[in-house]
Amino acid sequence: MTETVDLRVADLHPAVDDPALNSMNFLNEVAQHYPDAVSLAAGRPYEEFFDVAALHRHLERFRRHLADDLGQSPAQVHRTLLQYGRTKGIVHHLVARNLAVDEQLTVDPEAIVVTVGCQEAMFLVLRALRADPRDVLLAVAPTYVGLTGAARLLDLPVRPVRGGPAGIDLADLREQVRLARAAGLRPRACYVMPDFANPSGTSIGLADRRRLLDLAAEEDLLLLEDNPYGLFPASESGRPPTQSGRPPTLKALDTARRVVYLGSFAKTVLPGARVGYVVADQRVAGADGTVGLLADQLAKIKSMVTVNTSPIAQAVVGGALLEHGCSLVAATVRERAAYGRNLRHLVDGLARRFPAGTSPVRWNVPAGGFFVVVTVPFRVDDALLHRSARGYGLLWTPMAHFYDDGAPVDALRLSVSAVTPEQIDLGLDRLAALVADETARRAANAEVG
Amino acid sequence: MTETVDLRVADLHPAVDDPALNSMNFLNEVAQHYPDAVSLAAGRPYEEFFDVAALHRHLERFRRHLADDLGQSPAQVHRTLLQYGRTKGIVHHLVARNLAVDEQLTVDPEAIVVTVGCQEAMFLVLRALRADPRDVLLAVAPTYVGLTGAARLLDLPVRPVRGGPAGIDLADLREQVRLARAAGLRPRACYVMPDFANPSGTSIGLADRRRLLDLAAEEDLLLLEDNPYGLFPASESGRPPTQSGRPPTLKALDTARRVVYLGSFAKTVLPGARVGYVVADQRVAGADGTVGLLADQLAKIKSMVTVNTSPIAQAVVGGALLEHGCSLVAATVRERAAYGRNLRHLVDGLARRFPAGTSPVRWNVPAGGFFVVVTVPFRVDDALLHRSARGYGLLWTPMAHFYDDGAPVDALRLSVSAVTPEQIDLGLDRLAALVADETARRAANAEVG
Repeated sequence: MTETVDLRVADLHPAVDDPALNSMNFLNEVAQHYPDAVSLAAGRPYEEFFDVAALHRHLERFRRHLADDLGQSPAQVHRTLLQYGRTKGIVHHLVARNLAVDEQLTVDPEAIVVTVGCQEAMFLVLRALRADPRDVLLAVAPTYVGLTGAARLLDLPVRPVRGGPAGIDLADLREQVRLARAAGLRPRACYVMPDFANPSGTSIGLADRRRLLDLAAEEDLLLLEDNPYGLFPASESGRPPTQSGRPPTLKALDTARRVVYLGSFAKTVLPGARVGYVVADQRVAGADGTVGLLADQLAKIKSMVTVNTSPIAQAVVGGALLEHGCSLVAATVRERAAYGRNLRHLVDGLARRFPAGTSPVRWNVPAGGFFVVVTVPFRVDDALLHRSARGYGLLWTPMAHFYDDGAPVDALRLSVSAVTPEQIDLGLDRLAALVADETARRAANAEVG
Repeated sequence: MTETVDLRVADLHPAVDDPALNSMNFLNEVAQHYPDAVSLAAGRPYEEFFDVAALHRHLERFRRHLADDLGQSPAQVHRTLLQYGRTKGIVHHLVARNLAVDEQLTVDPEAIVVTVGCQEAMFLVLRALRADPRDVLLAVAPTYVGLTGAARLLDLPVRPVRGGPAGIDLADLREQVRLARAAGLRPRACYVMPDFANPSGTSIGLADRRRLLDLAAEEDLLLLEDNPYGLFPASESGRPPTQSGRPPTLKALDTARRVVYLGSFAKTVLPGARVGYVVADQRVAGADGTVGLLADQLAKIKSMVTVNTSPIAQAVVGGALLEHGCSLVAATVRERAAYGRNLRHLVDGLARRFPAGTSPVRWNVPAGGFFVVVTVPFRVDDALLHRSARGYGLLWTPMAHFYDDGAPVDALRLSVSAVTPEQIDLGLDRLAALVADETARRAANAEVG
């Protein structure tokens, strides 16, 4: 008996059957299937400091801000918090203050669009930039899968640029621009995560940041700077990031409006608010000669995607910002300490279990953020993840999910954000067992073969 | 001196320069420019009953629901409210109960995707259905501009179907399907608002609802049923909608999964939560023979647009539902009375000011909802709106904004949702003066010409 069917996947937008959109689903399903496994896969923020009472406090703090600081009447306060509202958001002035305080970045609040998480910010920017089928996006590979997925939904091809240990290979970027143009394509922008990138963990140094900006100007490219992890350097000192040698953001170095800056509060305030933003101060000329901000074009698009970001969710973020004088560096002292501790613990633990000289296992040592990439002497695919989960009780993310070409990859991503040091120890013991068994298995197969 | 420009609108997606996306902006700008005008334009819900304290109460009510009814531990409650979460949402079970209680509609909660307002629900459905350039959408004209705008962003042409006094002209729908197919196009669905439509105010009767469902089955069309106003019949009795002769929703009559149901809490709970949903129980076959729900395909798309709907915003809606036993009919007694009173007041006021027999002004008498369409003996365009705002202190919406073809329209939309009876009286006095002056002006011009 065949089941009644109303539609076929082939009749829907091709993105729904694309690996980029199915990757997260697949990883979530594996995680749900093995709920007792140690997860070094999840990039979620630490939950230890979560506090439902803070929701009420932040809401009330922002309500008082509207009344006391902005002089809104009770009726206006009600309208701001509960009614349809400004498409570009109601916490834009606080976001601008935050960027000034934490990033020494001066931004016109009117150039900010508050979005439903950073994901919507990326989606709006890609929708605006994909004007016709010649348009392509460049992105440092490996790439955050949310970027690839959003591009897929918008029929915007993503062409990889080599990342490498320096975070971006500038010669390759220039070459990819040339190749795309030679093929009649129009590279609109290059997506990059300069600080503690997901998934690679790498950062771009100050000199390369300046070179990247110069290259963008020469090649007439925009840079999409995504910065969810910048406040989490893993310095032993526990000093705040601005005093710990982290270079300025691309946007802070940008004197020619080449950078569209994508911001997230998911890791610094809380994921459940689903509040992010985009700084888009580029000047856009209309057909009639008027000049406005790219932010206003993004807002028009937003009005047809989500209308506006929930003012209640914005109020929670706004209250959290106000509570700390708009400094998220100040707000995340505990989180920074926990992530730094975990990252150091993971790297030390890898060194103990895979000694240089005797083990072929390699990894990078990120200066901060959530992720470490481990390279092993065999292919790392979804089948291996299943074996790891089932046989060893350990979850991680195959790096192949962050490349778009389906080529074999011999690396996996470990995340330290949602675990304790004890779970890291347990997870690394299991990883060592997995690696030993896989190495032995392959050696045996090689002898037989 | 020319201003430095970074981009041109012509280099962005064409939708940003489209009337559908600029319509809302234009109307908002007019409203902001004339803040003291009486607005019979705004379709926002009534603010009189807004209550910030309710936010805290609803959050707390939903928190208790998670703990007491669903048995979540404190850590699980924190995770549900504050962490990244289920893509399809966390109040789906309450939405299903609401549909059962208020609409006698039995829905699998797994077929529901909770979205960032109804706008995102429309956007996800249109993204899924627009598989290739042959695909087109049919929509009853005049059409809600948010639908047209979302379609524009997705390069999905919208072909109008005559609405007329019965809400939809079924012969024209059949003809439009035939014409589209003859042109090599693939009509995927017809968008319809069967109850007190925006902007027309019309409703579709029970017999036509059944015929529409039959036609959809014969022509292999989906129906996108949008129902933001169904709970607001304007019956004198003030009886709840289910006892006041409102016919069942298309979805409640749908035995063959032809209807994708779009729901909003903006008018029944509060706009500021930005929570809506879609019921998509259609069975979708994958290339590998597996069969799943359309809701799961929409969730994949959502994961790349907004990731998930803020659980905090969902909790506010969930708490409001729980407070009223999941009945929004029960929750909206005061709102229903206010909207019904206003609608009767408006219609009565029109009849007094434009007496049948002596005045050429006509209007429809909707059985509920927010909107009345007034037809006048001259063209109603944006220039007239400016004259009305500047010279008469009155705002309304030109009906031309709800048609997609730029043809002249001699009608305007009046909204009763965000005003008092006194403001309605004042607005109608001003409308009468505007109509009298315009009629005289045109008569004088005609004599001269």
